[in-house]
Amino acid sequence: METNVCNIVADVKIKIPELVGLKENHKTTIVKVNEVEIGGSEVIIIAGPCAVESEEQLFSTARSIKEDGAKLLRGGAFKPRSSPYSFQGLGEEGLKLLREIRKETNLPIVTEAMDTRQVELVSKYADMIQIGSRNMQNYPLLKEVGMSGKPVLLKRGMMATIEEFLFSAEYILSQGNDQVILCERGIRTFETSTRNTLDLSAVPMLKNLTHLPVIIDPSHGSGLRWMVPALAKAAVAVGADGIIMEVHNNPEVALCDGHQSLNLEEFKELMVDLRKIATAVGKQIL
Amino acid sequence: METNVCNIVADVKIKIPELVGLKENHKTTIVKVNEVEIGGSEVIIIAGPCAVESEEQLFSTARSIKEDGAKLLRGGAFKPRSSPYSFQGLGEEGLKLLREIRKETNLPIVTEAMDTRQVELVSKYADMIQIGSRNMQNYPLLKEVGMSGKPVLLKRGMMATIEEFLFSAEYILSQGNDQVILCERGIRTFETSTRNTLDLSAVPMLKNLTHLPVIIDPSHGSGLRWMVPALAKAAVAVGADGIIMEVHNNPEVALCDGHQSLNLEEFKELMVDLRKIATAVGKQIL
Amino acid sequence: METNVCNIVADVKIKIPELVGLKENHKTTIVKVNEVEIGGSEVIIIAGPCAVESEEQLFSTARSIKEDGAKLLRGGAFKPRSSPYSFQGLGEEGLKLLREIRKETNLPIVTEAMDTRQVELVSKYADMIQIGSRNMQNYPLLKEVGMSGKPVLLKRGMMATIEEFLFSAEYILSQGNDQVILCERGIRTFETSTRNTLDLSAVPMLKNLTHLPVIIDPSHGSGLRWMVPALAKAAVAVGADGIIMEVHNNPEVALCDGHQSLNLEEFKELMVDLRKIATAVGKQIL
Amino acid sequence: METNVCNIVADVKIKIPELVGLKENHKTTIVKVNEVEIGGSEVIIIAGPCAVESEEQLFSTARSIKEDGAKLLRGGAFKPRSSPYSFQGLGEEGLKLLREIRKETNLPIVTEAMDTRQVELVSKYADMIQIGSRNMQNYPLLKEVGMSGKPVLLKRGMMATIEEFLFSAEYILSQGNDQVILCERGIRTFETSTRNTLDLSAVPMLKNLTHLPVIIDPSHGSGLRWMVPALAKAAVAVGADGIIMEVHNNPEVALCDGHQSLNLEEFKELMVDLRKIATAVGKQIL
Repeated sequence: METNVCNIVADVKIKIPELVGLKENHKTTIVKVNEVEIGGSEVIIIAGPCAVESEEQLFSTARSIKEDGAKLLRGGAFKPRSSPYSFQGLGEEGLKLLREIRKETNLPIVTEAMDTRQVELVSKYADMIQIGSRNMQNYPLLKEVGMSGKPVLLKRGMMATIEEFLFSAEYILSQGNDQVILCERGIRTFETSTRNTLDLSAVPMLKNLTHLPVIIDPSHGSGLRWMVPALAKAAVAVGADGIIMEVHNNPEVALCDGHQSLNLEEFKELMVDLRKIATAVGKQIL
Repeated sequence: METNVCNIVADVKIKIPELVGLKENHKTTIVKVNEVEIGGSEVIIIAGPCAVESEEQLFSTARSIKEDGAKLLRGGAFKPRSSPYSFQGLGEEGLKLLREIRKETNLPIVTEAMDTRQVELVSKYADMIQIGSRNMQNYPLLKEVGMSGKPVLLKRGMMATIEEFLFSAEYILSQGNDQVILCERGIRTFETSTRNTLDLSAVPMLKNLTHLPVIIDPSHGSGLRWMVPALAKAAVAVGADGIIMEVHNNPEVALCDGHQSLNLEEFKELMVDLRKIATAVGKQIL
Repeated sequence: METNVCNIVADVKIKIPELVGLKENHKTTIVKVNEVEIGGSEVIIIAGPCAVESEEQLFSTARSIKEDGAKLLRGGAFKPRSSPYSFQGLGEEGLKLLREIRKETNLPIVTEAMDTRQVELVSKYADMIQIGSRNMQNYPLLKEVGMSGKPVLLKRGMMATIEEFLFSAEYILSQGNDQVILCERGIRTFETSTRNTLDLSAVPMLKNLTHLPVIIDPSHGSGLRWMVPALAKAAVAVGADGIIMEVHNNPEVALCDGHQSLNLEEFKELMVDLRKIATAVGKQIL
Repeated sequence: METNVCNIVADVKIKIPELVGLKENHKTTIVKVNEVEIGGSEVIIIAGPCAVESEEQLFSTARSIKEDGAKLLRGGAFKPRSSPYSFQGLGEEGLKLLREIRKETNLPIVTEAMDTRQVELVSKYADMIQIGSRNMQNYPLLKEVGMSGKPVLLKRGMMATIEEFLFSAEYILSQGNDQVILCERGIRTFETSTRNTLDLSAVPMLKNLTHLPVIIDPSHGSGLRWMVPALAKAAVAVGADGIIMEVHNNPEVALCDGHQSLNLEEFKELMVDLRKIATAVGKQIL
């Protein structure tokens, strides 16, 4: 199968692989995670803690975000950490907690797989499998989740070009799985005041190049809790199909990423604001 | 005078110079350009061509954008061009055309000065002096516009940190001139599908660090006409005090930046959308 | 186990994990690959094709580079490719060819493993396992090669800071394996005339922070065959313990990276020049 | 005059302006600064303090570096500083000190001009005018030094592509002045352990694209005194026509850049090493 040079968009000269390229009708593919549809006129909010830490932490967070309008629950059981001595996640114990709270709240679960050997296990519990930034070019892993039959949330590498991002998605689609959501989560630049530089222009760019839904992660995109609301609002305005955010019932004691997690009250307030922006751009958040 | 380490914002460890730092009441300084106020609850739209090319081009563009709600007219008479063989601007002839259309439309004029020796001349015609990205660290020029008494629109260098941006503004304020607007216009990253990567997170970051108003330039930020509307909407949502955009009555024949200039019709439609977003975030565009 | 803030080098404020940090005597750890020692006064040259393509290609290349002074043979059997439709390597068939030519030339083999499930197989054939740039933060893979007992060649991610590079190495050492070589191979910057920007300053920096040997890959570092000799000479002058280069008996028809591979004659000539530089800095190439 | 797409170097697709492009014979232009020739088989060493601070500081440094083989003396009288409150240089007083020590040592002087209005004054004292990184795209200044008749040392902007660097040089040549030396001094990347990332590949790249001599600044390139020697050696090995280094008789009390300045003893030792590398690459340092 061949790749094509994109002629769709003036002044953008990048290669677009076959399966991720725009469809003839320019329609966005609807990715279905249980009953939730991503890629339509509803802006889907995904929320939850960086890592599953305990029943109390996970359940109280999940109940609260559900009430405020989140449609999926995120939470890591296997955590990729820069240091081998940092908390690496609860493993299968964490997956079981996720399954339990789904039973109660009916929120579909998105959680990360880091190793080809984990995909089978994670598939048993998760409704959508996340591939993290550091694994965007882990090709064996991309193929494995492509074969899993599960919807996939693919995060952009922090120094990946748009072209590379699309080719990584193609690895998944080439295995017969077109249920892929692309997530921009900040790229690495010279700027150091933020953890990463959130590339919001990736949303309109990707929407001109691919039929896959595109969402934004303002938590990793800034690394700063107080900045998340402003960036989340911008994400809705720029046309994102959804937002994934870190929310924690008690960020001050979080085992990871507490400095960039909203607390429950902040999330509630933000949802009110996001609904207004969604309406202003002709979409909605239910 | 000493510089202070900023303790205002958790997790941001940068030096903030004295005069640009937040005021005690955290109020944004209102920059007044004739009757127009920037930094209040109205999102100010600045529009116009990259370069002044002719009476016909400038006047028809200015009349149209004024009708649609733009509050200032931009247009270059002296153009910084990468190649010495590219069109360098009409010079004083261009400044005279700007003055003439201001007389008719009452739109204040913002135009660039590139050389310390030009500041006196530009001050005679312009209502606000622009310092371009390439001159963000041209310190003699910063001092000169600081002494000019005119409001200044300072563009962030395409590889300048937030800290450097603030120190460049301090050069202007140190001359007794606090009428300075900061403009984020895209930074240089590894990504090549866009001309620059528009750093929208610079808006909330700067608003937490300085009392100066902050605006966004989505035209240079993307380099792609079709992407400007999405980024302009995001700019309003993220909290910008204004937007500066390139608009041309006939972008196809523009002498510079035609590929990133909106035509008159596109600008008119965008203004309708921007008003909705402004309302959604508690501001307005009159 | 705790990490320490580095106080060794003035003006460098980064965290250094325990096991990779400098030893008290500041000695470089000697990494032994069969009879070859890396980290001593001999600058070790590693050469060979990007991918193993055929017996003829591999064997003629290996015989020639050995004669010119290369001490290890590189060649990929599993290739990480941006596109799922590009040549992905010969797999175990390639590993067998590597084993065969080792029998003849006695050159130890370095080849890449991309998947935790491949490590056992690759270990059966290879003398040193390479972890590619895209997998520098593939933590399960790092642990797996850490447990393999084989020497490891760890390439710096094209977006990885020095600190992250050292923490990735720590993942390997934390499994009881200190036979790790660090390889700088170009980082991603805004510059587009070269494929990557080779960060030669990483050599003295790493040598001030860790006891592990450091080598340079000028082939990926530039992506340009004609530039490889100049960068290889600079690598020896800057203090690298070795160089890894792509060499092919017929680059024009190579299945991957032909544009950055030296041909046999170019490699021969370069080795003459490298010996002179090695002598000038008090080292040698035998 | 038109610009040409470069076809000289395979895989490098950048525009090369007319006057800086390679000559037919591929000869490097010899830039003459009084009796010193840059661009021939001698590697020219330029040394001196960041800023002229006092007679004692300048004279003792100049005498010492001359004895060790430096061929030009650098020293700033007008200093571009990020903060308006930092030491801005001695101004004309500094230029007079430079002239005085030239009388004694016969070392030609290279010093910076930052403002079009300074060029006439600086030309009266200096033998070569330096354009600093922050002014690489200060086009009025480039034209002014182009008309000055003086040799020009043009530093690459820390954010400038090779193509932009060449177009900035073209501004000078377009005024009839081909006595221009290009200086790579580190580019801005995500890496924070060094002040900048020295792009040594710029040397072979530029030498394949332009007839102008190319030199390296390892002091700004690293920002770390202890790293300067390693990078200087690499610069000679990679083919640079010269090196410009910060040397100070007492770096601990320097008013600027003390942390990256060699002391007199370190410079003396480095010169011994550099001569060996120069010989190894078929050049010399007299």
